Amino acid sequence: MRAALAKVDVARLGERIEELGAIGRTADGGVTRLGLSPEEDAAKTLVARWLQARGGRITRDPAANLIAGFGSGDRAIVIASHLDSVPNGGKYDGHLGVLCAVELIEAATAAGVALPRLDIIGWTDEEGARFGVGLFGSAAAYGRLPEGVVARRDRDGVSIADALRALGHDGDPAAARRRGTDRLYLELHIEQGPNLERAKRPLGVVRTIVGITHLRVTVEGAAGHAGTTPMEGRRDALVAAAEMVLALDDAARRRGGTVATVGEISAEPGAKNVIPGRVIFTVDVRSPDDDGRRAVVSVLEDAKRDAVQRRGVRVDFDTLADLPAVELDKGIRGALGEALREVGVEPLELVSGAGHDAQNPALAGVPTGMLFIRSTNGSHNPREHATAEDAALATKALILSIARLN
Amino acid sequence: MRAALAKVDVARLGERIEELGAIGRTADGGVTRLGLSPEEDAAKTLVARWLQARGGRITRDPAANLIAGFGSGDRAIVIASHLDSVPNGGKYDGHLGVLCAVELIEAATAAGVALPRLDIIGWTDEEGARFGVGLFGSAAAYGRLPEGVVARRDRDGVSIADALRALGHDGDPAAARRRGTDRLYLELHIEQGPNLERAKRPLGVVRTIVGITHLRVTVEGAAGHAGTTPMEGRRDALVAAAEMVLALDDAARRRGGTVATVGEISAEPGAKNVIPGRVIFTVDVRSPDDDGRRAVVSVLEDAKRDAVQRRGVRVDFDTLADLPAVELDKGIRGALGEALREVGVEPLELVSGAGHDAQNPALAGVPTGMLFIRSTNGSHNPREHATAEDAALATKALILSIARLN
Repeated sequence: MRAALAKVDVARLGERIEELGAIGRTADGGVTRLGLSPEEDAAKTLVARWLQARGGRITRDPAANLIAGFGSGDRAIVIASHLDSVPNGGKYDGHLGVLCAVELIEAATAAGVALPRLDIIGWTDEEGARFGVGLFGSAAAYGRLPEGVVARRDRDGVSIADALRALGHDGDPAAARRRGTDRLYLELHIEQGPNLERAKRPLGVVRTIVGITHLRVTVEGAAGHAGTTPMEGRRDALVAAAEMVLALDDAARRRGGTVATVGEISAEPGAKNVIPGRVIFTVDVRSPDDDGRRAVVSVLEDAKRDAVQRRGVRVDFDTLADLPAVELDKGIRGALGEALREVGVEPLELVSGAGHDAQNPALAGVPTGMLFIRSTNGSHNPREHATAEDAALATKALILSIARLN
Repeated sequence: MRAALAKVDVARLGERIEELGAIGRTADGGVTRLGLSPEEDAAKTLVARWLQARGGRITRDPAANLIAGFGSGDRAIVIASHLDSVPNGGKYDGHLGVLCAVELIEAATAAGVALPRLDIIGWTDEEGARFGVGLFGSAAAYGRLPEGVVARRDRDGVSIADALRALGHDGDPAAARRRGTDRLYLELHIEQGPNLERAKRPLGVVRTIVGITHLRVTVEGAAGHAGTTPMEGRRDALVAAAEMVLALDDAARRRGGTVATVGEISAEPGAKNVIPGRVIFTVDVRSPDDDGRRAVVSVLEDAKRDAVQRRGVRVDFDTLADLPAVELDKGIRGALGEALREVGVEPLELVSGAGHDAQNPALAGVPTGMLFIRSTNGSHNPREHATAEDAALATKALILSIARLN
């Protein structure tokens, strides 16, 4: 494998970042490429073209995941990341991990290196921005799909099953299950946070992926005329929701290391002269510490009881996800750290505040590791950025890690 | 005029409530008939047919208001209300005032009574639910349209000018201006509140229409990944907005007689794992006491300054409406009160918490009066209700008022 190091090509990586980033490009230079959309499918087709040209055995599994097989052997080293984005997101989140895997194949091919059995995977719908179900493709592959998930619908009423069928699949993503075929799982991803930038290091090793609780909260009050309903008689669903939003934010601020966000909110009927009778909002709580996460969710439960009593509303919590924090494989972390040292980077172990597909193989018992690539301007916005140079260095570290782990 | 009293027909009124209420009927028995929509136009066509059959001179002015002229003379007594609804509203709000005017014409015709110069008007888009501009038709008629209003667009990007042109007008509603042609203005409307019901009286005289401030508030923060952005660094537009929603609610509760509502809210980009970078919400503050209304708006200004300082967001207020409270004409109130006594109702003077088209002639200097008809279940919902009996009594009071005021 080491012979491939010299063939890693920064210019090619840079060009492909742009070429892949052009699929679903938005007016302000971002990317909108929702899960199971024609844009996500086009991204997979482009990546498949590159990998097929280097001898990859291309398949799409029943969850629409793109798989390109290389080398031979019973059990594979998986190198994977995702190819979807949030609405008006960036061109690095997920995509860069796939591009580094493609560059590894290009470099190994150019160097004439014999590859071990590798599966390069582009996961479907990691973000969950369309159907509210994140890590979709990897959950299907590792037997971790939520019950009844294929019936979930997007804003236009299209279900996951419908969307799969529109792409030529039979609508049963659970059939994508990978059964004991994986030796180990590696994922490269931009950090999406400031730690590597602050530490002036291009790469880092992920120790823990935070646990995540996702809720959909429905507040039912009473709609009424904004001018003729006295303040005393009101059961205003939005005022009750605002109290819960603030209680959640305050609780997360008090509990260091835990973060909480309300990213979506809607009020019905939604006219300026009508008191909101129903408000629906989402809750996202994350922590490397499961107790911290549960404590913040419990403050929200208190705020709910308070709203029911004092505001006369009804509040329902729908749990969309409840994943524990995951500590990644110690042996792989060691190998990744050694590979980093070989490319001249003193390894730093990091907490991932974002959820990642790597959670699914790790929770399914596959030895799993992740490398973070330095990124700026956060992520999930058009300004997220990583350099082709850092991606090339990550590709080299990946080559060295595989040499060590194979 | 008094001869017409005996010809007021409860059954006919009841039938026409249903016939008019069928235009734009919704699945749960409500009405969706937005301003300048085909449904609103169809309602005007139905009313025009009834009035033309009794000799009305039918016109549509450049704001699409329906005008039916009767009798002769230089200056008219205007009897008016509106024919639009909020989304999934009821079949009484606005419509019943027009139906009582139609019934007055029917009764006077049947009795062979010579009418004074009357203009029966069905106003366009009182609710403002589509373009965010309430009291549209009457504002056009009395020279009180906001600057540049015709460029305002609905959710589908259709401007007011476009919508007017689609109905065959030339897109300049300001040309609907009524110039000194009105002797006085009368409006009948359901109360939309509980006071007449509680007092067990079918009718009441409006003393004051509350002043209204409508704002569109835009909070600009910074979008970011919900998992990787520490709580300390956040500029969460929704958390800042939630503080403002609560400050507003609290201020209105402290200031008796003033009400405040946030009826619409949206968060962008609107994904559960993205911190809201922009939140837009509407504010509706109403009071019979202009100082009270200004005091509540000033608390909101304080909350804005606080949000800018503590949350690092930018906040912009866009004033959509800022109307003072209006005390209606004392002479007309006296005549309406006497008419109520004649039909056996002890007059009660009321504050209108809802805005009404009557504000516009009143602020333009036309002597203006309003009668409220008892209603139940609030309004702006499918369950709002008033009886045909109360509407018939209101028609009789209207006949007697005109006899007194002519």
